[in-house]
Amino acid sequence: MRSLIDITDFSVEELYDLIKTAVHISENPDLYAEKCRHKKLATLFFEPSTRTRLSFEAAMLELGGSVIGFSEASASSATKGESIADTAKIVSCYADVIAMRSPKEGAALVASMNAKVPVINAGDGGHHHPTQTLADLLTIYREKGRLDNLTVGMCGDLKYGRTVHSLIAALSRYTGIKIVLISPKELELPTFVKREIVEKAGMDYVETTSLEDALPTLDVLYMTRIQRERFDSAEEYERLKDSYVLTVEKMANAKSDMIVLHPLPRVNEISVKVDDDPRACYFKQALNGKYMRMALILKLLEEAKNPVKEAYGKNYVEGHKCTNNKCVSQTEQELPSLYKRTADGKLRCVYCDKEAD
Amino acid sequence: MRSLIDITDFSVEELYDLIKTAVHISENPDLYAEKCRHKKLATLFFEPSTRTRLSFEAAMLELGGSVIGFSEASASSATKGESIADTAKIVSCYADVIAMRSPKEGAALVASMNAKVPVINAGDGGHHHPTQTLADLLTIYREKGRLDNLTVGMCGDLKYGRTVHSLIAALSRYTGIKIVLISPKELELPTFVKREIVEKAGMDYVETTSLEDALPTLDVLYMTRIQRERFDSAEEYERLKDSYVLTVEKMANAKSDMIVLHPLPRVNEISVKVDDDPRACYFKQALNGKYMRMALILKLLEEAKNPVKEAYGKNYVEGHKCTNNKCVSQTEQELPSLYKRTADGKLRCVYCDKEAD
Amino acid sequence: MRSLIDITDFSVEELYDLIKTAVHISENPDLYAEKCRHKKLATLFFEPSTRTRLSFEAAMLELGGSVIGFSEASASSATKGESIADTAKIVSCYADVIAMRSPKEGAALVASMNAKVPVINAGDGGHHHPTQTLADLLTIYREKGRLDNLTVGMCGDLKYGRTVHSLIAALSRYTGIKIVLISPKELELPTFVKREIVEKAGMDYVETTSLEDALPTLDVLYMTRIQRERFDSAEEYERLKDSYVLTVEKMANAKSDMIVLHPLPRVNEISVKVDDDPRACYFKQALNGKYMRMALILKLLEEAKNPVKEAYGKNYVEGHKCTNNKCVSQTEQELPSLYKRTADGKLRCVYCDKEAD
Repeated sequence: MRSLIDITDFSVEELYDLIKTAVHISENPDLYAEKCRHKKLATLFFEPSTRTRLSFEAAMLELGGSVIGFSEASASSATKGESIADTAKIVSCYADVIAMRSPKEGAALVASMNAKVPVINAGDGGHHHPTQTLADLLTIYREKGRLDNLTVGMCGDLKYGRTVHSLIAALSRYTGIKIVLISPKELELPTFVKREIVEKAGMDYVETTSLEDALPTLDVLYMTRIQRERFDSAEEYERLKDSYVLTVEKMANAKSDMIVLHPLPRVNEISVKVDDDPRACYFKQALNGKYMRMALILKLLEEAKNPVKEAYGKNYVEGHKCTNNKCVSQTEQELPSLYKRTADGKLRCVYCDKEAD
Repeated sequence: MRSLIDITDFSVEELYDLIKTAVHISENPDLYAEKCRHKKLATLFFEPSTRTRLSFEAAMLELGGSVIGFSEASASSATKGESIADTAKIVSCYADVIAMRSPKEGAALVASMNAKVPVINAGDGGHHHPTQTLADLLTIYREKGRLDNLTVGMCGDLKYGRTVHSLIAALSRYTGIKIVLISPKELELPTFVKREIVEKAGMDYVETTSLEDALPTLDVLYMTRIQRERFDSAEEYERLKDSYVLTVEKMANAKSDMIVLHPLPRVNEISVKVDDDPRACYFKQALNGKYMRMALILKLLEEAKNPVKEAYGKNYVEGHKCTNNKCVSQTEQELPSLYKRTADGKLRCVYCDKEAD
Repeated sequence: MRSLIDITDFSVEELYDLIKTAVHISENPDLYAEKCRHKKLATLFFEPSTRTRLSFEAAMLELGGSVIGFSEASASSATKGESIADTAKIVSCYADVIAMRSPKEGAALVASMNAKVPVINAGDGGHHHPTQTLADLLTIYREKGRLDNLTVGMCGDLKYGRTVHSLIAALSRYTGIKIVLISPKELELPTFVKREIVEKAGMDYVETTSLEDALPTLDVLYMTRIQRERFDSAEEYERLKDSYVLTVEKMANAKSDMIVLHPLPRVNEISVKVDDDPRACYFKQALNGKYMRMALILKLLEEAKNPVKEAYGKNYVEGHKCTNNKCVSQTEQELPSLYKRTADGKLRCVYCDKEAD
């Protein structure tokens, strides 16, 4: 059964097919309005995420299907101690495709190993959030006409921002991509992401602490939020935060065809006045996210008609219990501890990618 | 884009058209069962209100449309600090019409200023709740056959009861309406409502503390709940509360064709035994609310096909920050402080109607 | 108006009809995909129960209907003090059938006495949960080919487990049923269930504390969860709990055609490794629950077309206020205290079945 857990589960060709389908949907919505008639999507959100959930639900409804689910853990059976695996098995009796959001890293993977229907990872803790990356890619493609030969600035919290890590992983498969990493020292891109993704793919990159310096060079600016609690001191936060707020003044120095993306919600890292600038594409990005989710649901339901033996499980080895306290293996009943050897030669937990001790 | 924020956004003629449509729907539901096929309503409820939300959802489903949304703030992006404006912009990507409930006064107005789809105010704090008034008007019209030449008693908490204020505003546009204001001194109708609505419209009105005295004179009795916490002392509450409970005994002195309305939920201000009295119309009122919401959704979606430049913004002036701590302008990112000059010559906050200091 | 509050509301013949319909649905889902077009189910869940709620919602959607509702009390009007009776009256304006879950015993009965549409009890505290029993019966029927001449083991918490009590009540109407009651002394089947259901029906039964001893004799094993908080001491719990965990090793001694049921959620009372055993039927049971709910909704909507005067109320007598603090009569506004005389000659509260003091 084909699922989408990590953006790299799909090949570059498959992503391009999704993009083409999404563009076609956006231009011919009526052709798709009954495609999923009598099909059901289950949105299993163990933590709230209105935007992502509503986007999935709108996507399914615009395909003529319907939706069941829950929007936070308190309304779920998890409070009674049910495992992710059991939830996935049960919900397979009720729905044709599952979108799962969980604070536990690896939760969607465990669900996909147990469900009888396709599972879409709608965010598993700080780990993966592939449908956000689908929205990012479609927006870049539609606005810039290409996914290669671009200078892409990533600004804000590059340390914890999973959307940044996923987008870098996705872009690393295209040619001519230059990454400009813009952040305070405290929130730099983690070394393992730099080594294993950026450098391994041979991507060109520079690091800077100045948004203003970087702006004129960019084709794409990907903004993210800087959270106060990431800093050791309130003073440090106050001193730095304004440098990473995008304003009309800063936009004056950017290229006339640069585009600004943001995974949203925006708090105050982009001034509301920037919204009127035609280069501000973050609301278009939300709309694009819906079209990509429609394309994704169609693809997964189509592949589910002729399920192939899944790839998960091959090349896995058993090992010590993972020590990442956010890993789903910490709480899931009788879940085998599994490790995979990644391209860098290291053993990593199958569920959360933490390196084996 | 046409929205419904305050009942007076619609002219008397428009209200009459809505009433006619609602009556037609109630008599011919099958004719409307597919009117909104492939249309989506978003119910954005930042605070719970089951009855209102279910009424909106039933209305949309009975029109053949579908529904997305959330039922309380904890399941929304507001907990991540997203502004009302951004929520409205994003949800415009997912739905064709929005019903918004918020504890913040002016929230629905801010949403309507930013959404690309019509917004219906499903309650903004103690400020407006126009679809309740639509239900009230339809019930009076259907039961009494007219909206003019009526003696209407309002009983209970007239100070804080927004449904009472809205109904008075709506009725002030019809002729021959006499208002009987029945409440303890502590919960009298506020002076500004008396001056700016009742007296300005030249409505006939009397005030009394006795429900029993007023009852025989009424064509319509609008009951509301008296909350214990509105009183300075528990003794005062205990001493007064029974006078404002409608019982079978008190009903004996009312006209045989009087009707009793209540916005619900009822707690104990109407005895359950009154429910069997044919004059008790509060459950019919709930049903009427659904029909009016259906008529309203149809009207707004129809007008959205040919959007006219909205009226909001004309005649607004910038001013000091509003000091009402329940006003949406207290929390909304970069929201301009706007004031309008009302008929009484005063400057009032555009969002919450508080008079400028 | 016909409702389902207690499994014994339906005759053995009616249950058999439901089973036949459910089997037909499972084999011909397309024939039913539009049966409830334009019909609405309201899921009123005053406490969370994802599995039950999603099962009802999937059932209604697979019949072509739609769903409104809430999934926990905080999102309902109950927080504003609304009575169950009023909620039922109001929701009758919005939906064609109601599924209600409440922590209050008798809540669904009170709803059914006030609603204008059929009410399905989706669990009223520790009292009844008839649709779970419907799932149990269909699973036994489909897997064993019969509902009579079976040796049925009930294992775990037989004292508080309402699903066990309901299943015993249902099975007591078939012939040749032998019950094997497997539990620690602390969690034995209550005496009144033994006397009034098991012995009254002349059912053969044995009691044992050993799952291992009982296993080889069983045609059906019904597992339930043992909760730590049921024991006086943690030591006692620790000492006992493993005896009541079903493992691959214990399964080795069971009949090759025995079936294992569990109402779910499972916590750890069945090892995950047992899931692969073909005798493990608890996930099938969840699927069967959906089909039975579909059959039930169809039956109740069909009967609602020609409502007969309900049986509730006949032979009821007024009496003292019920002293069960979980009884709905403790909180419901102006609810008459009603008692019925049961077959054992005792007076019992109509709402919660507590014996009159």
